[in-house]
Amino acid sequence: MTQPIAKRFPTPAIDTLPPDIRERLLAVQEKSGFVPNVFLTLAYRPDEFRAFFAYHDALMDKEGGLTKAEREMIVVATSSANQCHYCVIAHGAILRIRAKNPQISDQIAVNYRKADITSRQKAMLDFAMKVATEAHKISEADFIQMAGHGFSDDDIWDIAAIAAFFALSNRIANVTGMRPNDEFYMMGRVPK
Amino acid sequence: MTQPIAKRFPTPAIDTLPPDIRERLLAVQEKSGFVPNVFLTLAYRPDEFRAFFAYHDALMDKEGGLTKAEREMIVVATSSANQCHYCVIAHGAILRIRAKNPQISDQIAVNYRKADITSRQKAMLDFAMKVATEAHKISEADFIQMAGHGFSDDDIWDIAAIAAFFALSNRIANVTGMRPNDEFYMMGRVPK
Amino acid sequence: MTQPIAKRFPTPAIDTLPPDIRERLLAVQEKSGFVPNVFLTLAYRPDEFRAFFAYHDALMDKEGGLTKAEREMIVVATSSANQCHYCVIAHGAILRIRAKNPQISDQIAVNYRKADITSRQKAMLDFAMKVATEAHKISEADFIQMAGHGFSDDDIWDIAAIAAFFALSNRIANVTGMRPNDEFYMMGRVPK
Amino acid sequence: MTQPIAKRFPTPAIDTLPPDIRERLLAVQEKSGFVPNVFLTLAYRPDEFRAFFAYHDALMDKEGGLTKAEREMIVVATSSANQCHYCVIAHGAILRIRAKNPQISDQIAVNYRKADITSRQKAMLDFAMKVATEAHKISEADFIQMAGHGFSDDDIWDIAAIAAFFALSNRIANVTGMRPNDEFYMMGRVPK
Amino acid sequence: MTQPIAKRFPTPAIDTLPPDIRERLLAVQEKSGFVPNVFLTLAYRPDEFRAFFAYHDALMDKEGGLTKAEREMIVVATSSANQCHYCVIAHGAILRIRAKNPQISDQIAVNYRKADITSRQKAMLDFAMKVATEAHKISEADFIQMAGHGFSDDDIWDIAAIAAFFALSNRIANVTGMRPNDEFYMMGRVPK
Amino acid sequence: MTQPIAKRFPTPAIDTLPPDIRERLLAVQEKSGFVPNVFLTLAYRPDEFRAFFAYHDALMDKEGGLTKAEREMIVVATSSANQCHYCVIAHGAILRIRAKNPQISDQIAVNYRKADITSRQKAMLDFAMKVATEAHKISEADFIQMAGHGFSDDDIWDIAAIAAFFALSNRIANVTGMRPNDEFYMMGRVPK
Repeated sequence: MTQPIAKRFPTPAIDTLPPDIRERLLAVQEKSGFVPNVFLTLAYRPDEFRAFFAYHDALMDKEGGLTKAEREMIVVATSSANQCHYCVIAHGAILRIRAKNPQISDQIAVNYRKADITSRQKAMLDFAMKVATEAHKISEADFIQMAGHGFSDDDIWDIAAIAAFFALSNRIANVTGMRPNDEFYMMGRVPK
Repeated sequence: MTQPIAKRFPTPAIDTLPPDIRERLLAVQEKSGFVPNVFLTLAYRPDEFRAFFAYHDALMDKEGGLTKAEREMIVVATSSANQCHYCVIAHGAILRIRAKNPQISDQIAVNYRKADITSRQKAMLDFAMKVATEAHKISEADFIQMAGHGFSDDDIWDIAAIAAFFALSNRIANVTGMRPNDEFYMMGRVPK
Repeated sequence: MTQPIAKRFPTPAIDTLPPDIRERLLAVQEKSGFVPNVFLTLAYRPDEFRAFFAYHDALMDKEGGLTKAEREMIVVATSSANQCHYCVIAHGAILRIRAKNPQISDQIAVNYRKADITSRQKAMLDFAMKVATEAHKISEADFIQMAGHGFSDDDIWDIAAIAAFFALSNRIANVTGMRPNDEFYMMGRVPK
Repeated sequence: MTQPIAKRFPTPAIDTLPPDIRERLLAVQEKSGFVPNVFLTLAYRPDEFRAFFAYHDALMDKEGGLTKAEREMIVVATSSANQCHYCVIAHGAILRIRAKNPQISDQIAVNYRKADITSRQKAMLDFAMKVATEAHKISEADFIQMAGHGFSDDDIWDIAAIAAFFALSNRIANVTGMRPNDEFYMMGRVPK
Repeated sequence: MTQPIAKRFPTPAIDTLPPDIRERLLAVQEKSGFVPNVFLTLAYRPDEFRAFFAYHDALMDKEGGLTKAEREMIVVATSSANQCHYCVIAHGAILRIRAKNPQISDQIAVNYRKADITSRQKAMLDFAMKVATEAHKISEADFIQMAGHGFSDDDIWDIAAIAAFFALSNRIANVTGMRPNDEFYMMGRVPK
Repeated sequence: MTQPIAKRFPTPAIDTLPPDIRERLLAVQEKSGFVPNVFLTLAYRPDEFRAFFAYHDALMDKEGGLTKAEREMIVVATSSANQCHYCVIAHGAILRIRAKNPQISDQIAVNYRKADITSRQKAMLDFAMKVATEAHKISEADFIQMAGHGFSDDDIWDIAAIAAFFALSNRIANVTGMRPNDEFYMMGRVPK
């Protein structure tokens, strides 16, 4: 890899990292074949690394009313609104895989309103985008509208929390100049 | 307390909570004399609770180039831009105490540009607000400008991470309708 | 008072002022125990002073369908949108007193949509904020909606005129760097 | 005149008005040949009428560093940003006359940055527009920049106060649906 | 004419132009009595000139469900939103003539929502403005609303295409600093 | 192809098209292996089709100071700001091919400020984005800044004209619901 992992902060050598963080890096490398740069960038701050991934896992890996593909749709749509390289490109890859759809991520990143998704998914993204861009206007009326699309209050929490978590994540990535790994660009674009 | 803790989601009874969360609640109650509503609201989701406070502590309680009052300034300024009741009022209280200044929080919440702060602190808040509202435009020029005010790269990470964490926090609070406890309104307004 | 009254323009000595203006200052000082800085700042321009307070009194002291507390709500909400130190802090004090509610001003200043107010008052503030930020879009539909909340055409004029007057006032205060007097911060926060 | 004076509120008959207001209406009619609708619309509220015109006269008729044409430029530019029919069309007429220039008002209303004005006047309008649209960002740096174009602090107050007064005026006109009189459209377009 | 045709790019001498372009200039001069500056400015780039006017004629001179005055309304409203001197002033002149109404253009340029037009025309301009400023949000709901005002799908294409074409035209005019000819200011203001 | 070419308007059968348009479609099909949907969507309006592609070719196929890849960068950056599916995805494909870079289009679409481009190209895109989003603020200062990066006035016209042409194109595509052909998603992502 000739490009830096992140343009602005140093990346610690893996063997200097605390054991739990090193272990997580090795596990993800084993699973994915490479270490996504978000792990290496945040490893500069071990405590923040631990909290970040604990939060991520609590939202993205749990059971619930949203499919894993739908959770990634929220990430791609809101990260695109926040113009975050890492999150759109890396999670775009994950979304293509989760949805088994090579076009979905580009469609949602450019304009989710015109993507080939269900009207329930569009309502989900309308709400997620409101959380991302003007959460102060969320009101009871939004909950009622979401209920009309079949979302429970717990689903709404999940959608909001994912949009909120990536509000954090996008800002960190933009400030550190975090780069998406080269591998992400092609992932999920061609059937295995 | 006759008002709900948060307008939109249920609050679990304290004795039904996992032991580590219950312990944290009791500890904060012992220290502050009451349980801030953010603890009770997030206790509805124990895993998110743990990650949230781990992240919070990693940013707000650590050593570093920023004073604790300065960290709270970042919280108040960006939370006001995000129109978050809980964060402006609760962290406004904490800022008044940390800064030993009964006026500082109202000044920063209304318009930090005109608050009675140093020009270095104003530069810190200009940067924090850029992270809060248009992080995609952060560039090398911002780092240079901050260095000119004496901020190290690590200070800049801290400022950015606090603004990013409260980007998350403000959105959660706005969606759940989290209320500031009555106690916060007066804290730090009169000398002890 | 060690702080300047306004950061940018000189404040005339009281005994050099025209008699009618001096008299008004002394009257307000007698009533309030201090001279609010808006009087001293505008005294630099006697003709503007007279017009400003005549307008203020015509809107804020008259009889009508709005309570005095409701008028101050309009001032606090729109002045917060305009990020005006003097108006949010000084009129926040007056609102606390008029509403006999120590929390109302902070709630409205941060996010009136989530404040503990009636739905009629929320509709009033929605309209006032539209006047403050995009009056060019006010149409017959707004009048109909307001009538549905029980507001007469004269009430609507009052709401609009107060929002419009503080559009002026906020701009003057921001350009002159007008400071709220220290007294305002605590007024109405503790029961007498 | 087949069109209403204002679309939303009644206009009192002239002979029912308080004597001082009636007198002012007759004086302006004598001078202009017609009664501008702002007088008739505001006559519905005599106290506000008196304060409004006292303020107007204090700003627009006084001596000072700005020419009368320059004051009207401020009115036209800021009223166009506020999309106010009455103010752009009526004050556009007055500006054409004051500047003896039949094109100036249309140019400034559409885009003052490209109008045929001096660079000093452009700086004046840049500042006035900042007061009109984001006064909370006015800082010492703006005063310094204006001083560099030869504006005294008193000139700056005048510019700010005119922009602030028409912030009020534009909002009242938009809410009342105030119409410009037919006469204004052609005034100052052809040499006498 | 003492003013330049456009402030930023040279205007070729008419006799150096390709014959088809020269012919078009002479034809318009014969018809209008002068050569509108848009012809002279674009003549600097003959291929773009030909495509521009072919597009213009295809949209503005064709038959269809919109009157020629209505098409010009779209031009004036959207060009005003884009703050384009040439287009507002030149097409304002054409609209006055097409609509036989000396006031219509100034009204639409300042605030089309308050202009003396039919509610169908207002719906047309609401849609055109959405195309001009946030076309990415156009959805099936907009087509349904327009159908309710009696617009066919072909009418909607026409409205959208005119708004889109002037999105192009306004940007070219603003970058080249294209000036409206003196003649346009008075055209259509006085009955022949 | 199971998806419609455009969601909102009918696509004429190729053999019913005027000969010149049919010929252009067949030529592009021969060259690319498929007919890009923009050709089929616009064929519904033959005169607009001819003008559109004449304009396109005049800007994109000409000689000049910008490389073909740079022109496509302008298209991708401004079309992303306008959230246009067709233009970002189709021209993203063309840019990957022209630049022989499989990552460049995704980077520019998400946030051109952080893309792997030269500082000259970044200045080019800053200017193009200003044309796309606030052309009314373009001034002499922009030309000077561009000259400092080595752009001639003719280069600046080219950049502005491309941004302006896609301001049109993006709006047409968004209103018609024009879909990118499936082929575009993968073009240029893998070396031949």
